[in-house]
Formats: sequence, structure tokens, C-alpha cells
Amino acid sequence: MSEPLRLGLAGLGTVGTGIVRIVQENAACLAARAGRPIEIGAISARSRSRDRGVDLSRYAWEDDPVALARRDDIDLVIEVIGGEDGPAKATATAAINAGKHFVTANKAMLARHGQALAEAAEARGVALRFEAAVAGGIPVVKSLIEGLAANRITRVMGVMNGTCNYILTEMERTGAPYAQVLEAAQKLGYAEADPSFDVGGVDAAQKLALLAAAAFGTRVDYEGMTVEGIERVSIADIEHAAELGYRIKLLGVARLTPRGLETRTQPCLVPSTSPIGTLEGVTNMVVLEGDFAGRIVMSGPGAGEGPTASAIMGDVVDIARGLIFPPFGQPAASLCHAPRAGTSGEAAYYLRFALADRPGVLARIAAALGESGVSIDRMRQGAHPGTTAPVLIVTHRCGRPALDRAVSVIETLDVCHDVPVVLRIEDV
Amino acid sequence: MSEPLRLGLAGLGTVGTGIVRIVQENAACLAARAGRPIEIGAISARSRSRDRGVDLSRYAWEDDPVALARRDDIDLVIEVIGGEDGPAKATATAAINAGKHFVTANKAMLARHGQALAEAAEARGVALRFEAAVAGGIPVVKSLIEGLAANRITRVMGVMNGTCNYILTEMERTGAPYAQVLEAAQKLGYAEADPSFDVGGVDAAQKLALLAAAAFGTRVDYEGMTVEGIERVSIADIEHAAELGYRIKLLGVARLTPRGLETRTQPCLVPSTSPIGTLEGVTNMVVLEGDFAGRIVMSGPGAGEGPTASAIMGDVVDIARGLIFPPFGQPAASLCHAPRAGTSGEAAYYLRFALADRPGVLARIAAALGESGVSIDRMRQGAHPGTTAPVLIVTHRCGRPALDRAVSVIETLDVCHDVPVVLRIEDV
Repeated sequence: MSEPLRLGLAGLGTVGTGIVRIVQENAACLAARAGRPIEIGAISARSRSRDRGVDLSRYAWEDDPVALARRDDIDLVIEVIGGEDGPAKATATAAINAGKHFVTANKAMLARHGQALAEAAEARGVALRFEAAVAGGIPVVKSLIEGLAANRITRVMGVMNGTCNYILTEMERTGAPYAQVLEAAQKLGYAEADPSFDVGGVDAAQKLALLAAAAFGTRVDYEGMTVEGIERVSIADIEHAAELGYRIKLLGVARLTPRGLETRTQPCLVPSTSPIGTLEGVTNMVVLEGDFAGRIVMSGPGAGEGPTASAIMGDVVDIARGLIFPPFGQPAASLCHAPRAGTSGEAAYYLRFALADRPGVLARIAAALGESGVSIDRMRQGAHPGTTAPVLIVTHRCGRPALDRAVSVIETLDVCHDVPVVLRIEDV
Repeated sequence: MSEPLRLGLAGLGTVGTGIVRIVQENAACLAARAGRPIEIGAISARSRSRDRGVDLSRYAWEDDPVALARRDDIDLVIEVIGGEDGPAKATATAAINAGKHFVTANKAMLARHGQALAEAAEARGVALRFEAAVAGGIPVVKSLIEGLAANRITRVMGVMNGTCNYILTEMERTGAPYAQVLEAAQKLGYAEADPSFDVGGVDAAQKLALLAAAAFGTRVDYEGMTVEGIERVSIADIEHAAELGYRIKLLGVARLTPRGLETRTQPCLVPSTSPIGTLEGVTNMVVLEGDFAGRIVMSGPGAGEGPTASAIMGDVVDIARGLIFPPFGQPAASLCHAPRAGTSGEAAYYLRFALADRPGVLARIAAALGESGVSIDRMRQGAHPGTTAPVLIVTHRCGRPALDRAVSVIETLDVCHDVPVVLRIEDV
């Protein structure tokens, strides 16, 4: 058996602790599969003394992760510090510049600096791997970049934020409003104290940005994405959607269209009976569509100590086996600048208006939609106690600009009592 | 860019033709991702003249696949001839002995000769890859051997034969009996003229044998498996199962238990709301469970030209990228001989008896079960026009030997009018 592969571990939060556990508990199978022992050489974290329930006494310690990344006795640096800049970025740069392989779970850093870091890693001939950055323990990056490497990818989509899916399914299950379910999720540890990265769609969008680059051979373009969160999803919409045969999911969708790259993360209606429509709780699901492979659906735990550590160590075993290739599946310099297509494709939409309950109102709404070229598939008026009636409309497929024109006209009508709700219905 | 990787293609049926198409249509993305052009150098098949709808004029031709495998201008041999011995085996042996990488979709050959071929490939330092042999276009071998490499695998299971799942879901949908649905499936091309490999569970069991070896580090042991087909599943059982909240699936399950390796392919009841329970038609689904990753579920097309060609070419791109490691994830010589555990673990069972409809009969059945230590969770008598009543029983968890003792006693009772049906209820 060859020389051990020596890991430098930067970060000892939940995931870092999981990595220590997996290296200790599964040492024999790691060595058998990697063809060489995999050992932790040195660790860096903010607090050396905090009890994390694992024995760290055998490992060298560095207070500074950059110093860890430069140690001569380390072959590969694992970064689980987090944050798009700061010590995480400094560690990545130091590791790659020192000729170390680099494995990270840091979607924020890669969504911002993925292009530059990939170019640097390729220039140094080292691996940069990020399976754990997307959908936790599900090997979706590997399936896309390696398993489906012979395909032109036609679409990548998925539910990649467990916090949002938990909140949406709990709202549906309990009938409780968003704010109350969020608070409960925070108490259970399913949502952060500052939940904005999750519920605002940022976390899911960062993951989608990485998958899109790998899928379409385009440069990582987080800034070009459409990003909407779930903060405005109401229990009324969840219930109305269910009556129409749909569920609301925070869906990330990436497609390469004739107009350019379309990448959006937004609450969408999906058929209740589709795989994504059946997804419950914190589970993630990713759908990969290739011209030869067809549609591949993968689901599993999208976060947590064990799944994330599993994904990181899967990357480590690959590197130990000698698999070193460009981080996004083809040379970073060859990734193209795709034009941003926005969301200019056609789709059906779910609309909810709060309208005055008096004769002629529905006709005015229908007329406003018709004048913009938006035709109505289904329309129904919901039950209501007062003088304002909820009116639900499912449109036929239409362009978003035409729909936005119609909605802006309707908003100005005196019969329209609240801001209209517009949700895309996704073909999944 | 480096030298091209030159493929020798042995076999030009549906899958072989798909490989020609994918190499021709996706040449640019294959080259970008592999880091070098991927070209077909030579082809061998039984008929050179048959029109397959693809242009073969630019490729060298060999009538003998063994001669193809030995050509100096070929780096990698793809075998899509099929069959566990004969020309497929001769081609594999010749390719590996000539120092060529070898990629195959041939589960039958690997279930029988996988150990010897893996040892030969490792001795020659070449790759032997078989993603396409299991679950078509779903990258399940890669996810198991690479993505989950850091996990101790606790269970692998799945629906890995599209023909069987199509027949079972069609029986449920139409209410038509097995023989009639099989005939319709044959007309549609979803079942072979000789369907015995599919409906008898052999094809699914061969796939499971390969996954089990990779999952548990055990030698491929097809002979040690429990293999039952779907031929005896009746529309009555499908309907009764549905009333109880279950669906019947041909399920392959592999677990490493304290008693040894348990590998079985048999019709089982699974909860209708579980991912496997929702599976329709020819789609395949595989569930991988790891001690750190948790439960990963993958589904997609399990057969067909495009998906199978996609899986084969994914393996080819890996090899072009330089990924060469033991076929089953660790050296073949280190794979252990696991004892065969049979199906001696405990499970709940679904039982259907055809019993005389007269007082005291149910008591005698309950007594026979009780005397073997099998306790009853639910019992119900089905509707019936005549003097024979269908009686359905769901047992509590029990061992199969105890259950078999009870059933053999019941079979001899004069009130038992037909061979009892016994189906395992799987925890999925």
C-alpha cells in the first residue's frame, strides 16, 4: 500500500467534527477503497479547547488556517470554515498556491470566486472539489460532471435548500403561517438565527450557480441569476395550489436556451404527483436531464454532519485514487460567458388577486390579461367572508413580460385590494 | 490537447448503435470534458451490411470481436454483445490481456466472471468499468463506489428491472392478469420474446450481485442469492396489497448482516407512499444507505439505447480523464468470501390463503401461526362469491423459517383450497 494521504482540516464546526469522526470510524474502509491510508495531519479552528466529542489529541494544531494550508506535511486541505471571503478564501488560495489539493463545502465562496480558484487549481495541477457544496450527501456534482459527462445537459433543477422545503411542507401540514413555522424551525435547528440566506433563496441559488457552470460549460454567474425567496408564500397560496393539484416548492432551474443561460431560484408550483412534488421536509432533490441519459432524479439528506462529511470524504477518496481533472469538468479557461436569458421563456402561471366582490370585476381582470395576450386556462373564486374575494387564475403558457404588463394594469384598478401573487408553474 | 482515446466497439445492437450516435453527435463536449478527443477506431458485429441508421464508413471493421480487442490502434474496448460466455467473455479476456481498458454493459458476464475479470484487469493495470450493467443511465455504480466511498454501506436495494415494474404497474392500472399484460409488453418491446431472464428475477439479481460486491467488499456471489420472479404475482394480491396501503414491486435487497451477506430479489410489498412505492412503468430506482450519507435515492430510465450508451460513455470519459482503480472499488483479491445469510432476518409478511368459508376456519389458521410463534398484525377476509374465501393476513415481524413451518402446516389442512401466497413486506 502506498504512502498515506495526509489531510489538513480547516474548520471544526458540525461538518469538521463529522470529518474527524468519519476518518476515525471508517479508517479501514477508507484505506481499502482509496488504496492508501487517509489520515488527518493537522487541524485549524477558532477554539482548540471546546469539547466536540471527538479525540483531537493525535493531530497537530494551527491557530491560523493559512498556516495549516502551507504545512509541508499536508497533501490536501479541507475547508469547512464557510463564508465567501475572509479566512475561507485565504485558506483556499494558500492551499492551491502551495500545491495542495483542495476540497470544500463552501458554496458561497465558489459562487463568487469559483472561476478564479478553478483556474488557479488547474494551473497548479491540483484538484479542487466541491461535492459537499451542493445537496449535502447526494453525489449530484459527481453524477453531473462524471456520470453524465457524455451528455449535452438540457436542464438541471431541484430543491436544494432543506430549510425552505421544511418550512413549506410544515405550513402545508399544520396550516400555520410562514412566520410561525420559521420560528419553530429555528428552535429545532432547521433554520439559522439569521435565516435570510436560506429563506431568501441565496443558498439554493449559489448551489444552482455551481451546477449550471458544470452542466453547460459556462462561467459561474451568480450575479446573473433570478433569485426569489419564500418569504411571501402564504398559507392561502399553498392551499389554493393543493386544490389545483400542485405544491409550492423553492425550485432552482437552469437551462441553456437559444437566448442564453436561464438560471432562477424561485417559489414555483409543481404537480403534486411529480417526484419534486412529493418531496417532504429537509430532504433535497435534484433532477438532471441529458440528451442521451434522459431524466435522472436524485434525493437524500441535503445537509447535516454525516451527509456533508460523506460528500467531502468521497472527494478525498477520489483524489487519493488519482482522479484529478478540472473542477467544473472542463478547463476553466474554456468555460464560456453565456448571455443572461432572464426568465423570458414561456410558462403557465398561477395568479392570486384580492378583488372587490361585485359584478363585472372578473370581466375586467380577464380583459386586462387578454389585452396583454395572456389567456386563461382556469379561473376560480375562493370562499370569502367579507367584501374582498380571492380570485385564482391559472394561465396558459405565456411570456413573463406580457404577464407583468397585465398584472401592473390590474394592480392599478380600484377593484384590486392587494398586491397580486404571481407564481410560475414549472414543467417538472 | 492530448492524443485521442481510440475505442473498439464490439456489438452493434441497440446500445452499440447508441454509442456510435453519442460519439458522433456529442464529439465536442466529449472532447472538452475528457480533455482529449474520443474516437471510434474499429467496430465488430455480426452483420456489417445491416442499416442501423448511422454512418459507419469511417471506422475499421473486424468480423471477429477478439481480433478487434487485440488491435494495436485501439486503447479501450466496449463490449455490448451480451451473454455470460461466448464472444463477450472472449472479447473481455482478449482486451484485458492485450492491456486495453474494458467497458461493458454485460451484467450476466460479470455476475458469473466478475471476480476473475477484475483480477485480470488489476493485474494488467487497466480499467474494467460497468456502470451500464446496472440501472441503465442512472449513475448508481459511480455513486456507490465513488460518491459514497467513505461510508460503510448498510443496505442497497432497488427496482432494477423495468420489464417487471412495467408489468406490475400495468396489472394494477388495467386489472388485467399477468399473462395478458406480459403479452402486451412483448408487443410493445418492453419484454423479450423469451422473458424468463426478466420476469424470473435473474436480470435484477445479476445487477444486485454486482452492487452488493461493491457495497460490502465481498466477492460477487450470484449463486448465493435468493431469486424469485413475478410470475406468480396475481392481480388479487396487487389489489389486496393496495387496500392495505402497499404496492408489489420486484425488489432487490442486499445487506451485510452479522450472519453474513443477505442478497435477495423477490416480489415484496412496499408502502405505497415510499419512493419505491411510487415508481411507475419501466423506470428504475436504487436506494443506497450509508452510515454517514444516510439514504440516497436515485431513479431514471433503466434501459434503452440512450441511457445505456450514456452510462458506457461516462465510464469512457472517466478513463480518458485518467481514473483507473479496481472495478469493485477495492482490490479484487481483498474482496472477502462472506457467508450466505439467506433470508433469516425478521420481517413482516403478507399471506393470502384460499380457505373454506365455514365456522372455525380462521381460528385454525391463527392457531397454526401461533404455534410457530408467528403473531398476526391484521387479518381480513376478502369478498367472494363461492364457498372459498380469500383470507389476508399481515404478520408481525417474524423469521422466515417459523413462518414457513406454519404455512406448511396450513397447506395440509383440508380447509386450505390452494397454495398459500407468501410475500415479504420490506422496510423501505
